[in-house]
Amino acid sequence: MSRPTTDGPRVGIWLIGARGGVAVTSIAGLIAQQQGLADGTGLVSTLPPFANLPLVEWNNLVVGGHDIRQAPLIDELERLHTQSRVLSPALVESCREELAKIESRIRPGTLWNVGTRIKQLAEPAAAGRSSDSGINNAKSASDVVAAVQADLAAFKEDNALEQVVVINLASTEVSPEDTDAWPATWDELKISLPTADCPLPASSLYAIAALDAGMPYVNFTPSLGSALPALDDLAHQRGTCHAGRDGKTGETLMKSVLAPMFAARNLEVMSWVGHNIFGNLDGKVLDDPANKQSKLSSKGNLLGDILGYAPQSHISIEHIESLGDWKTAWDHIHFRGFLNTPMTLQFTWQGCDSLLAAPLVLDLARFTLLARERGETGTLDFLASFFKSPLGEGDQAFAAQYERLLAWVNSYSE
Amino acid sequence: MSRPTTDGPRVGIWLIGARGGVAVTSIAGLIAQQQGLADGTGLVSTLPPFANLPLVEWNNLVVGGHDIRQAPLIDELERLHTQSRVLSPALVESCREELAKIESRIRPGTLWNVGTRIKQLAEPAAAGRSSDSGINNAKSASDVVAAVQADLAAFKEDNALEQVVVINLASTEVSPEDTDAWPATWDELKISLPTADCPLPASSLYAIAALDAGMPYVNFTPSLGSALPALDDLAHQRGTCHAGRDGKTGETLMKSVLAPMFAARNLEVMSWVGHNIFGNLDGKVLDDPANKQSKLSSKGNLLGDILGYAPQSHISIEHIESLGDWKTAWDHIHFRGFLNTPMTLQFTWQGCDSLLAAPLVLDLARFTLLARERGETGTLDFLASFFKSPLGEGDQAFAAQYERLLAWVNSYSE
Amino acid sequence: MSRPTTDGPRVGIWLIGARGGVAVTSIAGLIAQQQGLADGTGLVSTLPPFANLPLVEWNNLVVGGHDIRQAPLIDELERLHTQSRVLSPALVESCREELAKIESRIRPGTLWNVGTRIKQLAEPAAAGRSSDSGINNAKSASDVVAAVQADLAAFKEDNALEQVVVINLASTEVSPEDTDAWPATWDELKISLPTADCPLPASSLYAIAALDAGMPYVNFTPSLGSALPALDDLAHQRGTCHAGRDGKTGETLMKSVLAPMFAARNLEVMSWVGHNIFGNLDGKVLDDPANKQSKLSSKGNLLGDILGYAPQSHISIEHIESLGDWKTAWDHIHFRGFLNTPMTLQFTWQGCDSLLAAPLVLDLARFTLLARERGETGTLDFLASFFKSPLGEGDQAFAAQYERLLAWVNSYSE
Amino acid sequence: MSRPTTDGPRVGIWLIGARGGVAVTSIAGLIAQQQGLADGTGLVSTLPPFANLPLVEWNNLVVGGHDIRQAPLIDELERLHTQSRVLSPALVESCREELAKIESRIRPGTLWNVGTRIKQLAEPAAAGRSSDSGINNAKSASDVVAAVQADLAAFKEDNALEQVVVINLASTEVSPEDTDAWPATWDELKISLPTADCPLPASSLYAIAALDAGMPYVNFTPSLGSALPALDDLAHQRGTCHAGRDGKTGETLMKSVLAPMFAARNLEVMSWVGHNIFGNLDGKVLDDPANKQSKLSSKGNLLGDILGYAPQSHISIEHIESLGDWKTAWDHIHFRGFLNTPMTLQFTWQGCDSLLAAPLVLDLARFTLLARERGETGTLDFLASFFKSPLGEGDQAFAAQYERLLAWVNSYSE
Repeated sequence: MSRPTTDGPRVGIWLIGARGGVAVTSIAGLIAQQQGLADGTGLVSTLPPFANLPLVEWNNLVVGGHDIRQAPLIDELERLHTQSRVLSPALVESCREELAKIESRIRPGTLWNVGTRIKQLAEPAAAGRSSDSGINNAKSASDVVAAVQADLAAFKEDNALEQVVVINLASTEVSPEDTDAWPATWDELKISLPTADCPLPASSLYAIAALDAGMPYVNFTPSLGSALPALDDLAHQRGTCHAGRDGKTGETLMKSVLAPMFAARNLEVMSWVGHNIFGNLDGKVLDDPANKQSKLSSKGNLLGDILGYAPQSHISIEHIESLGDWKTAWDHIHFRGFLNTPMTLQFTWQGCDSLLAAPLVLDLARFTLLARERGETGTLDFLASFFKSPLGEGDQAFAAQYERLLAWVNSYSE
Repeated sequence: MSRPTTDGPRVGIWLIGARGGVAVTSIAGLIAQQQGLADGTGLVSTLPPFANLPLVEWNNLVVGGHDIRQAPLIDELERLHTQSRVLSPALVESCREELAKIESRIRPGTLWNVGTRIKQLAEPAAAGRSSDSGINNAKSASDVVAAVQADLAAFKEDNALEQVVVINLASTEVSPEDTDAWPATWDELKISLPTADCPLPASSLYAIAALDAGMPYVNFTPSLGSALPALDDLAHQRGTCHAGRDGKTGETLMKSVLAPMFAARNLEVMSWVGHNIFGNLDGKVLDDPANKQSKLSSKGNLLGDILGYAPQSHISIEHIESLGDWKTAWDHIHFRGFLNTPMTLQFTWQGCDSLLAAPLVLDLARFTLLARERGETGTLDFLASFFKSPLGEGDQAFAAQYERLLAWVNSYSE
Repeated sequence: MSRPTTDGPRVGIWLIGARGGVAVTSIAGLIAQQQGLADGTGLVSTLPPFANLPLVEWNNLVVGGHDIRQAPLIDELERLHTQSRVLSPALVESCREELAKIESRIRPGTLWNVGTRIKQLAEPAAAGRSSDSGINNAKSASDVVAAVQADLAAFKEDNALEQVVVINLASTEVSPEDTDAWPATWDELKISLPTADCPLPASSLYAIAALDAGMPYVNFTPSLGSALPALDDLAHQRGTCHAGRDGKTGETLMKSVLAPMFAARNLEVMSWVGHNIFGNLDGKVLDDPANKQSKLSSKGNLLGDILGYAPQSHISIEHIESLGDWKTAWDHIHFRGFLNTPMTLQFTWQGCDSLLAAPLVLDLARFTLLARERGETGTLDFLASFFKSPLGEGDQAFAAQYERLLAWVNSYSE
Repeated sequence: MSRPTTDGPRVGIWLIGARGGVAVTSIAGLIAQQQGLADGTGLVSTLPPFANLPLVEWNNLVVGGHDIRQAPLIDELERLHTQSRVLSPALVESCREELAKIESRIRPGTLWNVGTRIKQLAEPAAAGRSSDSGINNAKSASDVVAAVQADLAAFKEDNALEQVVVINLASTEVSPEDTDAWPATWDELKISLPTADCPLPASSLYAIAALDAGMPYVNFTPSLGSALPALDDLAHQRGTCHAGRDGKTGETLMKSVLAPMFAARNLEVMSWVGHNIFGNLDGKVLDDPANKQSKLSSKGNLLGDILGYAPQSHISIEHIESLGDWKTAWDHIHFRGFLNTPMTLQFTWQGCDSLLAAPLVLDLARFTLLARERGETGTLDFLASFFKSPLGEGDQAFAAQYERLLAWVNSYSE
């Protein structure tokens, strides 16, 4: 199998929430790969099983995106360094010039149905006072979609890109209610778009804009995004693909690794308590109970799926300023063994959220772009190992999910 | 209390170290299953995937064994209850009568090459002053094997058993050196048996006795047992099978579950420190550095196998009297993520050792007896998920090991 | 100094919430001391510094109390044994006869202003359908106080008691609001008692009943109890004493021990997160946010007092059924050291709540009865080490609090 | 940058082991205080109770020292930054110039009786091939003392210092045996000095050099130093003072804070296990069992002193390269409460060793210099809160030790 050279076609990564910690770290990580400043540690796509896949080369990737805020990218990167003691000063410096270029490719994002807490984060340009974008003068969801598509088209043309993957990294929205009652086909759902009270949240409008334009879409957040049958329908109609939802980076990753052990050993999990503390912007947004609910739902599904019964489970997430981007999760698992004997497993996970998420964003971009190139349509089930609430069917056990990724690689080689 | 009968043939479980905590808990667990006093929690063989296997029924199992000590079985069971606060008083009472019967089927064990520490545990009968057994008047390893075989034959005949599985649960021996240089075939190895300075340890003599008699053998301890090519050869010659080594119940189980996650996410494990404290007899034996070395070797192999490189690793095991049978393991895993970021996972495992081990002993008895019945010979690779240092080939990741067990079940159904 | 003999006068301990876990454990502990079944471990008053104090002898103590429930005392004791694996079966048996006697001295408690959650726990007798007590036919707070005082007087007379200490162990009430605006003198406050809408909660009415009758009162719970200036005034007027509030048994004890270390070393506590999980009735009551607020307020005060500044602090309390009476607290303390270096201390406390609380209840009974005998009036500041929110003035550091207890002993000997 | 000057006399701090992590961090901390680059966090002597003491001003302190290695000071500082992610790049830069000056005041140290492991660390100059110092051509302990005194005298004169405090920060030596049998008076002990086989270790020779010259001496390490009656005698004879031994920065600090809680609550500590892992040079030296023994002895004394009985205790220290200067201590405390109930407290301490130690070094310098100025002689008991194995008498509970420090301040003000 031959690989593309760096003379290969250029492709784009369009980040929703491009000024946030995960996005900026992903960009810095991409620059580090392009400039040879870091090894592949943390990246799944650089592991040996993926060595022969014709994944896009780092040097052929171009970044752009939307954001509702205007703070310079370099500020966020410097904050990660000074507040959270991650990234070397040398790396930060190496990114400065490239970040300035990317800056010019970031467009104001939409605030359509994002909820109060996120609106408070927005700055004037995104909040509608800017003249350089139609997005915040939108009178309907259709207008929003059109504005997003205009931005995507311009990005593609200006940079001579063959394809663009759209990845949602924005703060967690308030979840709309009763989505189960929404139309299951694209033809029915799209009727609501031209209205001023269309209930679709921003994340879904971005997904529509991408999929309708034939671009692949990845939802790395707990927001709704493409997790609607009607959007999967749209993807199929346009011959494109999508994946999500909510990147699996820490406590939930551990759950999907540990719960299968309890199941395989017939140890009954009586209760599983998880307590998460961290201090970044994500945490601030989650301090609003409405936003937090989206996150908790996303984290809470898998235990029952893996164990076959639902133990008492409690998850809490608290914003602790002093921790910066570091998340500490303490989990307490109370289980019952042979002859009715209660036992306990506790773990403490101390990880830097942005640094755990960023490589997965780059991996997902590469895998999704390849799937798109191969003509795969609809939900990309084989990416389940990357998500807390994977779209599509399948076992939630991490090892089984990873096997599905390897099986996809093998199917490709055949 | 009358017991349900079943029609199948009766089979035996012969426990080496029958008076120890794991053995007595296994016996109590078997009685609880026979009398319907406990559900299947903790037992692998009662999980749905194994429901259609023709495994031996609990009521058809008869227990006997060897031990170098003479303390009544009920004492050990009561000690577990009073010192370690496990098992209900009702269960202990329910076992009293049956334990007395089993008592009569326990024979003095051998002290051949077990090391000083274990010899100190022995009581007169085992130490050679008893007239009721030839085992401690043995002048050569052959004599020991013959005495063991006489005990096994008597057990089989007295109880009209169709088959007997021999399971080693005795305290960890000092490891003999240079075993790699020992003969790889049975015909060569057996030449040393009739000598007084035969270097084979007790655990291997028991294994020889069992395999030579066509019985299956399981080594649940870190001792050498059947882990010699020559003994595998013997098993093949006699058409029987064996498995081992060292039951995987706690910290090492966690390692085989967690290490694959780090590998699959390309997170570099820089160091893995494990500190184990517990207060049972096993711990006392391991206080001797020579015995501890056998254990540490057994625990330490798998990280390199799973990760593909060897991180700095430190394992310590300390005997802390107050903990009784409860083992607390604290593990500190220091790993490197994206862009050179160090992160940490710590866990604390608080489990009751005998209660974690006992159900696996019963599972192994059932699986091994079925394999023997089916005519499988040599090493039973499909049992790898039960062992810290599995005999035979194969991936050490727990999920992969469990898949091999399920594959064996499936091959059986076909 | 001469000590009273067991021929000394008999005194009473009257427990509010007498059927709860802490009360029943206190009673079992008292029986164990009386019968010589346990050593003094866990009891402060049996330590050497208190050896010469003329504290009441165990054999001279008689127990009675109020409760809104009717379940037999022995049931709660057995539940502690079977669900939480504490107390030996032998001890439970030894208590059976004595508990039956105490049973006859427990009277229906009041539900006046206890909040919805606690009312749901009540059984018919306490809820007003019983004819054997006026307490639940009360039309005013005065009626409640009168009914309580009648019960106390009968207890004292029936058992020929010289004195009675009243100790509140009942479930945490909803906190009344604006108590700062309430009258600060007894003469003003008592005006509201004869009304049907008197806002005083049950815990304060019990306190009034006790203090007005000249009896000492101890509030071991976060409920309001005697924590009103007007009740301290009443104590002074009647020449009696009181102490409280909220027994300091676990996480808060640790805070009052650890926070002074950070202060003395000039290490800045940036954040202190405490996450508590447990499964007893207390936990169920605290699942109601209104009741939980009382508890959180009680736990949250001391950091600022000890450190001199208020770090970000988060405390959560969750009811996890499987834990029974065992409370696990995980605390994460993020602190800043020299040259701006962030560091972390985490602890996990696994304690059995009732067993931690019960000995303190017995200690408080003994110390308070002696103070009453000596004629001390008002708030007993020297008992601060026993409480999360100590009434009275003084440093909240545990070592300083304990020094005050020792100083009281020394003042007594002089 | 111009510095504020002060009028007081200049005094010196002479560091044994001046190139090590603690020393270099202490120097950087001093520079940061002199240049106003850091607040007082982590320094005890800047707390309010010490505000009115006439402690030496930061700007009046001059640093010099001995070391057996030659690596530039700035290298160690940079290594702390890059390997352990502590200290800001700005601070490191600010220290560069000043470190170069201090460099010129560092003299080769002695290897007399330091043990093999430490000798391996030494570089040629210290190992005797340098011509610029007599210290490594010494034929007797007297010669070593004379060489050290020559270095101290030169330092004092060259820098016009009024006084010099000598502080031992060197790697832990192997402990000499049978020191209890050594002479208890200076006059007897000094007889051995002129011999080639004088058993006194280097740390004691430095102490003798300082005390004999009337300078105060502080031993911040577990090495023997001044912990001999004969050296206390010498201090009294020369009218000077000394303190030690082994700075109390982490796990032992926690022990001296927590053990008094168990004692005051009559909770019986059944076992206390401490497991320490870290990756700095100290750790490498402690990998040698002979050196480790000195450390373990120092850490292990206080539990029995505080509790009044000796629980089973286990302490382990392991060198884990990846941790750099970060020390993680996991402690497991198993205690028995009321009615024989076993409970558990675990803590994990994650601290940066050099940053915890350095401010205490500066505090000790200031307090000791003041005591010397005041004419205090012999052991400075009031500094006990700073040490794991405090010289002199007194309660080992941290709160009590800190009270003694405050009492000293108060005695001074009177």
